Amino acid sequence: MLYLVGLGLADETDITVKGLEIVKKAERVYLEAYTSILLVDKEKLESFYGRDVIIADRETVEGGSDDILENAQEKDIAFLVVGDPFGATTHTDLVLRARELSIPVQTIPNASILSAIGSTGLQLYNFGQTVSMVFFTENWRPSSFYDRIKENTSIGLHTLVLVDIKVKEQSYEDMARGRKVYQPPRYMTVSQCASQMLEVEDSRKEQVYAEDSLAIGAARVGSKDQKMACGTLEELSTIDLGPPLHSLVLLGKRAHDLERDYIRAFAVNQQSFDASWAKYYSS
Amino acid sequence: MLYLVGLGLADETDITVKGLEIVKKAERVYLEAYTSILLVDKEKLESFYGRDVIIADRETVEGGSDDILENAQEKDIAFLVVGDPFGATTHTDLVLRARELSIPVQTIPNASILSAIGSTGLQLYNFGQTVSMVFFTENWRPSSFYDRIKENTSIGLHTLVLVDIKVKEQSYEDMARGRKVYQPPRYMTVSQCASQMLEVEDSRKEQVYAEDSLAIGAARVGSKDQKMACGTLEELSTIDLGPPLHSLVLLGKRAHDLERDYIRAFAVNQQSFDASWAKYYSS
Repeated sequence: MLYLVGLGLADETDITVKGLEIVKKAERVYLEAYTSILLVDKEKLESFYGRDVIIADRETVEGGSDDILENAQEKDIAFLVVGDPFGATTHTDLVLRARELSIPVQTIPNASILSAIGSTGLQLYNFGQTVSMVFFTENWRPSSFYDRIKENTSIGLHTLVLVDIKVKEQSYEDMARGRKVYQPPRYMTVSQCASQMLEVEDSRKEQVYAEDSLAIGAARVGSKDQKMACGTLEELSTIDLGPPLHSLVLLGKRAHDLERDYIRAFAVNQQSFDASWAKYYSS
Repeated sequence: MLYLVGLGLADETDITVKGLEIVKKAERVYLEAYTSILLVDKEKLESFYGRDVIIADRETVEGGSDDILENAQEKDIAFLVVGDPFGATTHTDLVLRARELSIPVQTIPNASILSAIGSTGLQLYNFGQTVSMVFFTENWRPSSFYDRIKENTSIGLHTLVLVDIKVKEQSYEDMARGRKVYQPPRYMTVSQCASQMLEVEDSRKEQVYAEDSLAIGAARVGSKDQKMACGTLEELSTIDLGPPLHSLVLLGKRAHDLERDYIRAFAVNQQSFDASWAKYYSS
């Protein structure tokens, strides 16, 4: 049996009781470590589980899933995923491969940022499609997220923006030379995300949002150290919310008063919050 | 401290290790029991926790939240919510009241149907806003869900339809006479949901979807006994997926081939699946 076990969002104790039992008994335990991270390291997990954990990077999962699935017809294999196994990035290809090999699959769900973002106080019913924001480079500044946000805002919905993480990335030079040398991990911040959003609005000028549109920056959601800041995109473009992981929610115009009451407590500046609210969101 | 603890979706072992520690130590433990249910009963939870659990029905939470919050400035109170505390229904009013009373609040996230529905194999990025379907009565057949679905389908997105549950409801007669007598619980099925959707399309005729539009019925998501069926709305309108809870996802036209490969394994009838796919979703 292949078990896809969600780990939740923050630390080693966010695993479910059911998930923990599976990990303790499994023949091999893999940790998918390239689409998201916990706020604790592998050693902490190993000591909590009392088990060795094998790091599964992108190469292992996408190129060598048969190693992971080896003898899973008879033995139990646990594949650990930060958040929910089918959350921000799905592992459908691993499951499809397991199906081909007649390996039964069971999923142990857990918290995902897609639902935990409800702790902003914004109603999950009012969210449109989720978008991703990648690190812009000199030559690659994709703005497809802008089209998706436009679709959401056109019907008044909030947008959750998931921000890029770069783990075990090679530089172009090292890649070209075939050197397996990896860059230090990088995690996009709320301020970088807000800046890139404003840059794209500035070049596309379709008035999907503006400098004084309201958004919420959320850091380390689900941990004790969780932090929320509500402000205009301009305010958020210079904010420091501390260590990763960060996410951002752009408010839709269908926002209602109960949501306002809740998020106003997170306002960076209540005066600018009230001004933007009155301008765009009060109906 | 007020702890909002998510219980996940299926049984008593879906609580997180962190959540369980809080429940074991809390001064009082409440279970919110009107917006969703676990697939196990209160007694099972109590024996697993080694604690008494106080059922909090709608009256208690909405009318008497101060009972729940009593002495929570000094003591730890655990308020248990099936799924994620901020999932399908938010408990923002309870948190707002706690804030007024200067009671600190911490949330322990868990799996919600909003992310666990990813186990259909549909990409969560491709979902629009979530809608709710209530039991139609002779005089009350609200079709606002249809407008929301129309917004989603107009931009090609999937729609998660959460279906009604009726727990501790009074009949009109008992309510009028002030008798605290409650009806047996009722849980909407996928077939009822699909039928009501078709009825509304039939009366509104805005071609938001059709009898041969594809949808996935999902039952008991996150449990060992989870069941998925993919078919046309007409096929799903007569399907029996067994005990609650059920949900339905209406496919959006932006569905892609990896999603097709995954969900085709759940097809009620692969021939009609392929026909509908070719008609509406292949791009």
